[in-house]
Amino acid sequence: MERNIKDLVQQMTLEEKAGMCSGLDFWHLKGVERLGIPSIMVTDGPHGLRKQDSSADHLGLTSSVPATCFPSAAGLASSWDTELARQVGVALGEECQAEDVAVLLGPGVNIKRSPLGGRNFEYFSEDPLLSTQMATAHIQGVQSQGVGTSLKHFAVNNQEERRMSIDAVVDERTLREIYLASFEGAVKDAQPWTVMCSYNKVNGTYAGENEWLLTDILKDEWGHEGLVVSDWGAVNERADALAAGLELEMPASGGIGERKVIDAVESGTLPMDKLDLAVERLLTLILKAVDHKKEGASYDKEEHHQLARKVASESMVLLKNEAGLLPLKRKGSIAIVGAFARKPRFQGGGSSHINPTKVDDILDEMTQVAGDGVTISYAPGYRIEEDDVDETLLQEAVQAAQAADTAVVFVGLPDRYESEGYDRAHLRLPDNHIRLIEKVAKVQSRVVVVLSNGSPVEMPWLPQVQAVLEAYLGGQAVGGAIADLLYGEVNPSGKLAETFPAKLSHNPSYLNFPGEADRVDYREGIFVGYRYYDKKELEPLFPFGYGLSYTAFEYSDLQVDRTALTDLDEVQVQVRVTNTGERAGKEIVQLYVRDVESTVIRPDRELKAFAKVALEAGESKIVHFTLNKRSFAYYNVDMKDWHVETGEFEIQLGSSSRDIRMQTRVSVESTATFIPTYTRNSTLGDIQQDPANKKLLEQVLKQFQEASGFGGGDDSGDNDHADMMNAMMKYMPLRALVAFSGGAMTEEAMNQLLDQMNHKDHGIRG
Amino acid sequence: MERNIKDLVQQMTLEEKAGMCSGLDFWHLKGVERLGIPSIMVTDGPHGLRKQDSSADHLGLTSSVPATCFPSAAGLASSWDTELARQVGVALGEECQAEDVAVLLGPGVNIKRSPLGGRNFEYFSEDPLLSTQMATAHIQGVQSQGVGTSLKHFAVNNQEERRMSIDAVVDERTLREIYLASFEGAVKDAQPWTVMCSYNKVNGTYAGENEWLLTDILKDEWGHEGLVVSDWGAVNERADALAAGLELEMPASGGIGERKVIDAVESGTLPMDKLDLAVERLLTLILKAVDHKKEGASYDKEEHHQLARKVASESMVLLKNEAGLLPLKRKGSIAIVGAFARKPRFQGGGSSHINPTKVDDILDEMTQVAGDGVTISYAPGYRIEEDDVDETLLQEAVQAAQAADTAVVFVGLPDRYESEGYDRAHLRLPDNHIRLIEKVAKVQSRVVVVLSNGSPVEMPWLPQVQAVLEAYLGGQAVGGAIADLLYGEVNPSGKLAETFPAKLSHNPSYLNFPGEADRVDYREGIFVGYRYYDKKELEPLFPFGYGLSYTAFEYSDLQVDRTALTDLDEVQVQVRVTNTGERAGKEIVQLYVRDVESTVIRPDRELKAFAKVALEAGESKIVHFTLNKRSFAYYNVDMKDWHVETGEFEIQLGSSSRDIRMQTRVSVESTATFIPTYTRNSTLGDIQQDPANKKLLEQVLKQFQEASGFGGGDDSGDNDHADMMNAMMKYMPLRALVAFSGGAMTEEAMNQLLDQMNHKDHGIRG
Repeated sequence: MERNIKDLVQQMTLEEKAGMCSGLDFWHLKGVERLGIPSIMVTDGPHGLRKQDSSADHLGLTSSVPATCFPSAAGLASSWDTELARQVGVALGEECQAEDVAVLLGPGVNIKRSPLGGRNFEYFSEDPLLSTQMATAHIQGVQSQGVGTSLKHFAVNNQEERRMSIDAVVDERTLREIYLASFEGAVKDAQPWTVMCSYNKVNGTYAGENEWLLTDILKDEWGHEGLVVSDWGAVNERADALAAGLELEMPASGGIGERKVIDAVESGTLPMDKLDLAVERLLTLILKAVDHKKEGASYDKEEHHQLARKVASESMVLLKNEAGLLPLKRKGSIAIVGAFARKPRFQGGGSSHINPTKVDDILDEMTQVAGDGVTISYAPGYRIEEDDVDETLLQEAVQAAQAADTAVVFVGLPDRYESEGYDRAHLRLPDNHIRLIEKVAKVQSRVVVVLSNGSPVEMPWLPQVQAVLEAYLGGQAVGGAIADLLYGEVNPSGKLAETFPAKLSHNPSYLNFPGEADRVDYREGIFVGYRYYDKKELEPLFPFGYGLSYTAFEYSDLQVDRTALTDLDEVQVQVRVTNTGERAGKEIVQLYVRDVESTVIRPDRELKAFAKVALEAGESKIVHFTLNKRSFAYYNVDMKDWHVETGEFEIQLGSSSRDIRMQTRVSVESTATFIPTYTRNSTLGDIQQDPANKKLLEQVLKQFQEASGFGGGDDSGDNDHADMMNAMMKYMPLRALVAFSGGAMTEEAMNQLLDQMNHKDHGIRG
Repeated sequence: MERNIKDLVQQMTLEEKAGMCSGLDFWHLKGVERLGIPSIMVTDGPHGLRKQDSSADHLGLTSSVPATCFPSAAGLASSWDTELARQVGVALGEECQAEDVAVLLGPGVNIKRSPLGGRNFEYFSEDPLLSTQMATAHIQGVQSQGVGTSLKHFAVNNQEERRMSIDAVVDERTLREIYLASFEGAVKDAQPWTVMCSYNKVNGTYAGENEWLLTDILKDEWGHEGLVVSDWGAVNERADALAAGLELEMPASGGIGERKVIDAVESGTLPMDKLDLAVERLLTLILKAVDHKKEGASYDKEEHHQLARKVASESMVLLKNEAGLLPLKRKGSIAIVGAFARKPRFQGGGSSHINPTKVDDILDEMTQVAGDGVTISYAPGYRIEEDDVDETLLQEAVQAAQAADTAVVFVGLPDRYESEGYDRAHLRLPDNHIRLIEKVAKVQSRVVVVLSNGSPVEMPWLPQVQAVLEAYLGGQAVGGAIADLLYGEVNPSGKLAETFPAKLSHNPSYLNFPGEADRVDYREGIFVGYRYYDKKELEPLFPFGYGLSYTAFEYSDLQVDRTALTDLDEVQVQVRVTNTGERAGKEIVQLYVRDVESTVIRPDRELKAFAKVALEAGESKIVHFTLNKRSFAYYNVDMKDWHVETGEFEIQLGSSSRDIRMQTRVSVESTATFIPTYTRNSTLGDIQQDPANKKLLEQVLKQFQEASGFGGGDDSGDNDHADMMNAMMKYMPLRALVAFSGGAMTEEAMNQLLDQMNHKDHGIRG
């Protein structure tokens, strides 16, 4: 329906306008009844709908209506399957329509800086490109159903420790290349109806009061058309936040926020224009929700459960499979040990914790998929609620494992280990889980470990077991998915969207996480995840992009459609991938780019494209990629733009970040012009970069050398001495020629030279 | 002689005063003839005197008069022998007196941030305590002879790349704990007559114009009584530099510097007071030199050569000695291969490069020490001037090695690899040296490698050889020292003053060295050297403090004179060290301290004391150490002071940083008071740290919980949920109570509470 939103705003009183900029209650926006503007509802996400019933407490943490629990983002990202992410989005949109929810609060695209981050399970990856593409697909899916999303938490909210007071100090290149990039991509490609600002400060200013982030970058530079909503309770000073570009404070603040906005307008510190623009965006959102509302919508719970099962099976990552232990045969006996087999860990704690429509019993699903030929025994092995070893349970499990042909051990991180609100302190599994693995491995030579956890764990026991499946937090259909994978109904195709470090201390943020008092310095800069492990030559436990299959793939025929291009051109890359094994499977082909030589430090490789390709046994397909300027660029803070340095770039095609199968090179030429200004402190080496300047300088240097004896002929015939002379001249500032020339070069002459170089009004060039 | 310096200054014209603040020529200060103030001479150091003869060019790089070349600082520091450093200082002072030199430009105490640093050979260590103590002893030695020193390069001059234009960006804690600490210690303990400011910028301001460094810290805080001299050509704007505390510009600037000072005084931008103070310090220096001048002084060249030999033998570090290959037996045959055996590498390039009184021929020295029982052959194996393998020389060397009982291979870094002016690009030996080692090791099972280099190298060939002696840059008596050590005339006692990394990429500065354009960020912060490798759990090739002996030492009876103290107290530590081997030797006992728990990140261990103790075979001695506040403190930037956090500290006694033999704990109580100011953004967790505030807050929280239902009874009976609630409350800012209370708590009530907490005018405490 067409409405004139500007007219609507004109009809509103200051109180009505200010009122709309804060929530009605915990989950609803305010409407304006007399103008026919309804109140709409938002609820937590992002891997399921958390709509609280009417008895909601003020803080929104009590129980919610049943909804499908899909794998959390950490798992979903491991599928590297954007179409699947879109389908999950569609399903979530359907559930929102059925529950009369206008906006689902997700997805989260914060980059995994440290594996300790308490909400890592809600985020996609350590890599911004993978995060961007998964988030974009998710948003497009949800919004295709006429339901809004909230891209969160904007920005640099990478820890739970002191999240409401911490100041994240990050240089701009790192922000642009790592921490803002996935927001940028998703905003530009998918236009989420809302973006949620985070609790923390960014470089000294609360994200919610950060005009540079919310207005300059998000709205003006990236063109975000939706509105910014605060994380719940993130507003510090309401009027400052509104001025910075935060349209909606959530939840209701008992009238305080409204009052502050009114006071600010009345006192003239907040222009009415700014308030009007905010209200326009609010009205646009509400009316969009109204227009897209599907009355009487419903969804098929079983269908969504089956989708959740499919997604889970595509997301899980096979980390180890010695001597083809997996897939399991449908005969003989299996001991299933570990209490998670009956009470699975399938989602994380906090605002994303939902009330699932049903939850698989892993033991039941294993039994069903295995069929009648398999004898299955079960022993819990440990108590989920505690870390201490229960010797009786342990012994029973060890006996069961010993008695069977194969043992499948279900372990991971219990709920209390991973939640919104606090970070982990270490990467270890609970003691009783570790002991169970070790003891079982002592009596059984065919041990499969299935891990349920939202982020990486240490695996000191890895050499003792034969197979490991990383199930992540698999959602409510976790059991069916695991059974499908272990019995080969589905061929594992997930790959890690994050590095599993050998030791926590190897993590790039280790010396600066979670910071000191209310400040955390992101001193590792752009070297996050594999960018760091590769550059520092540290061997990870499992690298980014790693995952096994029951079949094998070969890469061949790498081709580029051009080997020389400018930064305005695109280059097409293709590679043939062949399934050389005995069964159908899917390969995730990863394309990384390396700048062969650069003036700024850059990673050894950065993911610039990927594709998941399904291949029957023996089948072969050509996979196509397109690279553009951004694929080769870094963020140049002086130019305030993405910049491609002219030179050679290596294009690496890999099955993981540490398994590059083929590579080729292209040369890219920059079309950017950046003319430096020379000063008395410019070095001779820098000045000589420009051929015209070099000529100018030569004349001056000749005079200088005659006067000083410096840098001229080398009496000693000593090459080492000459090396030093050359280096000294290269790094010498222009002013030093004056000082060292003993009067032969004057300050006036230097200034004249500078004028010539800066204005290029010299006749030498011709 | 007593003189009234203030009176002298009063008699001087502005031109005379300004004139004195710049040099007369390259090596002389200006005097004032009409007032009887002479011109004095300074020359480069620090491991030998580099006095140029009268034909000196303007840049001071031509040949100089003969002087004794002692081991450069990298080697000297490996002796960990402060008495020896003092003796070297005395000898240098004697040579200065003989050559009429008033000030010797050294020592250099910059911290080795990266092993690539071009001047690392001139610096002592990666550790500030070891640097401090070696520099202090050196200064005391030189100055005991009535000759001044110049502690350099102040400050943060840790690379040659762009050294005249680079801006070193370092946080204050890192400056205080690492990069300024060795200057601080040497200034306070030894009062060097001069301090030399460096070329680079520190946090945006040229060191020579950095008032915070030169005046606030150096003069006011540390009490430096001498003067600041510029590194040669380091002055940017002369008047600004003088105002910041740089009294002496060197070398002469052709009258430009003087003119600028006069203009600044005349225009009123530089107060005459400041100029007078500078001239007072200049006159004080000159007159001190005059008073201490020993007319007709001379020194014994041979005695100094023998001292150089002793120092070298105490400085070299035995890195590997498989199956007791060393010391060599005085029988059988030895092949000496490597051209360094006849043309040794014994000093570095640049301003410290001196003209030695004589240089040992290693082959000759080896032959002499070995005696008649040994057959010695020699083959050069490679050409020093190039990296390429010379197959003929190589073959000849391999044959010689094969024919002998033992091969001693002399390799290292040729002059061109290490010099002032440029940094290294990698840690590799030249290709022809590597090939020589590898080829010799293939035909000979008894291979001793002797390395001559100023800073760490990679050793991929290490497993193939049986013994390695790190000779560093051993000075002119390098040959005798090596022979003494290899034949056991002297038992090796040096230990590494720097970490040898397994890979360059493991170095803490690797991602930020040498910076981008004219800026280098010291992002590794305080984690320099072993502080980093320990914390990051990276295995070095050889750790800090490591070195072998021909005998063995045992540690026992670790005692402290108290286990509980305040930060105003000292604690005495003692440990018994026993030589359990068959021959006399020296052990370097290292005392490290670890803060068991702290609110800021701290290293796993920091060197706080050391002692070198000589022990006959079977002998046992008790070594004593005193620890004080500084031994336990970190620099607290908020308090602007060194601060000891109350708690437990571990005292570790070790034979190296990775070989801790004994440890004990003491508890230290802080006497500092630091009362925080609470704001609306203070977290509830922080507020509750103070018992009085905790009580106040309890009342408020009760109201809040009743109103919000948050943080109170837990309906779900779910402990995980409770963990999250607790974390959320802990990290919640006070303001959020207002927002979340739905009106139950007002802003006024919050402000009242803040008043109470900040002024403590509440009756609850009683």
